[in-house]
Amino acid sequence: MLMKEKIDLMDKIISLAKRRGFIFPGSEIYGGLANSYDYGPLGVELFRNISNLWWKKIVQERSDMVGVRGPIIMNPKVWEASGHISNFSDPLVECKICHIRLRADKPDEIHAHEETHKGKNSLPAGRQVEWTDPKNFNLLFKTFIGTTEDNKSTVYLRGETAQTMFIDFKLVQESARRKLPFGIAQIGRSFRNEITTGNSIFRMKEFTIAELEYFVKPGDDDRVFKEWLKFQQEFFAALGLKKENIKTVELPKDELAHYSKRTVDTYYKFPFGWDEMAGLANRTDYDLKNHIELSGANLKYKDDASGEEFIPFVVEPTFGLDRIMLAVLIDAYTESEARSGKDDAVHETEVTLRLSKELAPIKIAVLPLSRKEQLIAPAQDILKTLQQHWMCQYDETASIGKRYRRQDEIGTPFCVTVDFETASDQSVTIRDRDTMKQDRVKIADLVNYFGEKMSS
Amino acid sequence: MLMKEKIDLMDKIISLAKRRGFIFPGSEIYGGLANSYDYGPLGVELFRNISNLWWKKIVQERSDMVGVRGPIIMNPKVWEASGHISNFSDPLVECKICHIRLRADKPDEIHAHEETHKGKNSLPAGRQVEWTDPKNFNLLFKTFIGTTEDNKSTVYLRGETAQTMFIDFKLVQESARRKLPFGIAQIGRSFRNEITTGNSIFRMKEFTIAELEYFVKPGDDDRVFKEWLKFQQEFFAALGLKKENIKTVELPKDELAHYSKRTVDTYYKFPFGWDEMAGLANRTDYDLKNHIELSGANLKYKDDASGEEFIPFVVEPTFGLDRIMLAVLIDAYTESEARSGKDDAVHETEVTLRLSKELAPIKIAVLPLSRKEQLIAPAQDILKTLQQHWMCQYDETASIGKRYRRQDEIGTPFCVTVDFETASDQSVTIRDRDTMKQDRVKIADLVNYFGEKMSS
Repeated sequence: MLMKEKIDLMDKIISLAKRRGFIFPGSEIYGGLANSYDYGPLGVELFRNISNLWWKKIVQERSDMVGVRGPIIMNPKVWEASGHISNFSDPLVECKICHIRLRADKPDEIHAHEETHKGKNSLPAGRQVEWTDPKNFNLLFKTFIGTTEDNKSTVYLRGETAQTMFIDFKLVQESARRKLPFGIAQIGRSFRNEITTGNSIFRMKEFTIAELEYFVKPGDDDRVFKEWLKFQQEFFAALGLKKENIKTVELPKDELAHYSKRTVDTYYKFPFGWDEMAGLANRTDYDLKNHIELSGANLKYKDDASGEEFIPFVVEPTFGLDRIMLAVLIDAYTESEARSGKDDAVHETEVTLRLSKELAPIKIAVLPLSRKEQLIAPAQDILKTLQQHWMCQYDETASIGKRYRRQDEIGTPFCVTVDFETASDQSVTIRDRDTMKQDRVKIADLVNYFGEKMSS
Repeated sequence: MLMKEKIDLMDKIISLAKRRGFIFPGSEIYGGLANSYDYGPLGVELFRNISNLWWKKIVQERSDMVGVRGPIIMNPKVWEASGHISNFSDPLVECKICHIRLRADKPDEIHAHEETHKGKNSLPAGRQVEWTDPKNFNLLFKTFIGTTEDNKSTVYLRGETAQTMFIDFKLVQESARRKLPFGIAQIGRSFRNEITTGNSIFRMKEFTIAELEYFVKPGDDDRVFKEWLKFQQEFFAALGLKKENIKTVELPKDELAHYSKRTVDTYYKFPFGWDEMAGLANRTDYDLKNHIELSGANLKYKDDASGEEFIPFVVEPTFGLDRIMLAVLIDAYTESEARSGKDDAVHETEVTLRLSKELAPIKIAVLPLSRKEQLIAPAQDILKTLQQHWMCQYDETASIGKRYRRQDEIGTPFCVTVDFETASDQSVTIRDRDTMKQDRVKIADLVNYFGEKMSS
């Protein structure tokens, strides 16, 4: 694909996402807010389906995992121990002409800004930009608790979800009666005072992270790291992402985060280039050790059999759920020639979101062939029944072909059509999004029919 | 119940909740943080089950509802329009002796504080407290976006989730192609700079609200209000809460929030007294009107049939999910005489959490009768199969009686015991938490057996 086509693809997806209610710009009626987005009715369902699949695979199906749910605001000592107060920062430079601040580690943006001042249309046209020396800018959001704003009550919005699992390590291990190795998982929002904008939900001020801390005996960490790397790739396959759009990237030693011994990121081929959607880090005993030092709490693990006491090592798989959702949308986006008769075709090319049945926001659309009462009543009954089990949508407007297109465009795997035969044969036609095949199924069998379809 | 017993009950529940991993004090290793709690492995499952049931009943099963998911930080104009910047406050008074600030509207706490200064052990003993005049303290958490902390970039952590539904009203209505009446639902965290402490997760700085804004034609609001009041009570019944522990309270006119025409709160009989866990408000056109005025956006609804254009009225059912979780725990907590033989009894009284099957954090426990490999291997196989469908727990330690008690205490509805007959008859014993009945079931039939049990 050429650069132009790639950019077009991103534009098309952003436009579809807004028009059909996946992703809206945040606070749009007030001119927006940088790096802020809302998930609409379809977006929230897609997002929930991704989150729930993650929880099922990571927590429910594994005997060595448990979950937790911690707050966004914790005791500020947590961020002292974690190193975030000293290390969670971006290097910023300031343009001496217009005082805008940009990230020193983003050469493309620096260059683009220099070009604007050189350009003929720029107010101080033809000027060469000078930059201040880079200054570290901490990315933690600050806020204040209690009734005064003095220093004592400064707290932070969490910069990562991981710390809940470290500070609660002992509480979880003892209450859940766990032995090493075991892991603690959490899905939750993290915050980052991000100044770089663009690429939709790829970069947000607040984003949802699904991550887990897997506690092991020191020495087992390298082996366990490899196991989780494999597991992560299996999860992306379970989401239906195409293998050729995913690659892993080993971080060079000098780019590792302050807590990491080894990091392998998983990249997705976004239209704007390969970029990160998940990570895997060997955090060693960095966090537990610092928390022990600062709090004086005993976060060591005691092996009952040997009596040995030690600080566990930690392997951390992290999944950026918003970025994964964007990847899922891009991966599923398919254009094709009009698949149906000319009279029904809206455009020459038709769009289908080839989302897996598990991820599709709407599983089943219920469509009466016409707006006649004799079709609407049974269609409503069917809807009521199917809604007990699956997210459904009802649509009685426009031609049946147009309604199929609408469902294809949002990735609905099945359409149930109630027609003029339904009253006599107590059956409906089921259309499969991908095969375009139509099955005639008894109304009484629908729940079983879809039960099998959804689990296959 | 006497006051003493009630306080004991709360203590018992807090203690059980910590010991078994439902609720931990937040940031405990650092001495905590006021009004901050973490949900442990069982707490997060219970919380997810309540949230998911809400989403199923409110969004999935109703054709007139859709969901959204908005950010915690929005454009600050949102809070100007909503009235939160001017009205979201508590009246605080300051003690002139020690400068502590307390809520002027909490006479019990004011009185208790006055007593401490009168007491003999108080440093300035015998002194009569004087208070400053009440001053309104805004409850919104402030933070700063961008790279400087000047006024221009002050933003707030949302004080309610509702505003997403108002500012996105038009985007949702058009993208989801909805006609009035319809509603928009959201589950998410809200923040309140709360200074009153105590009563566990009843009062938190950050808490999760499940709420919906139901948009109607002006004039339909009073009728729709009654319908949602009924629906709310049905939801509490679906959670399994006892009817006698719930009551509705109509707010007098002079206590209504600044946006409300009518409010009915739903109270639960907590051990510390009747208090609010849900609300229902008629917000009229207050929010949409203010957003239209401040933003200039057209948030009116146009009736296609009549051509009429108007600002919808809004009925808002709100559910405090953390308070509901606390109510669920209290409601399910049951003490009884030791139900089994003396040898297995741990205490004279045994605790059972009589949680509904839908809410129980663990649905099935898999227990090999002894730690012999011939029992462990098939138990692990059964676990693997059942985990594909339900949250399970495996336990091979202690006597079978003790293990049953452990499961009763966390509300697990079913225990599967693998015994010495299992190898020959390919069957296991299933114990029902409530009836104590034991069924012998073929391993091959387990998934169907539980499938029926869980949906009945």
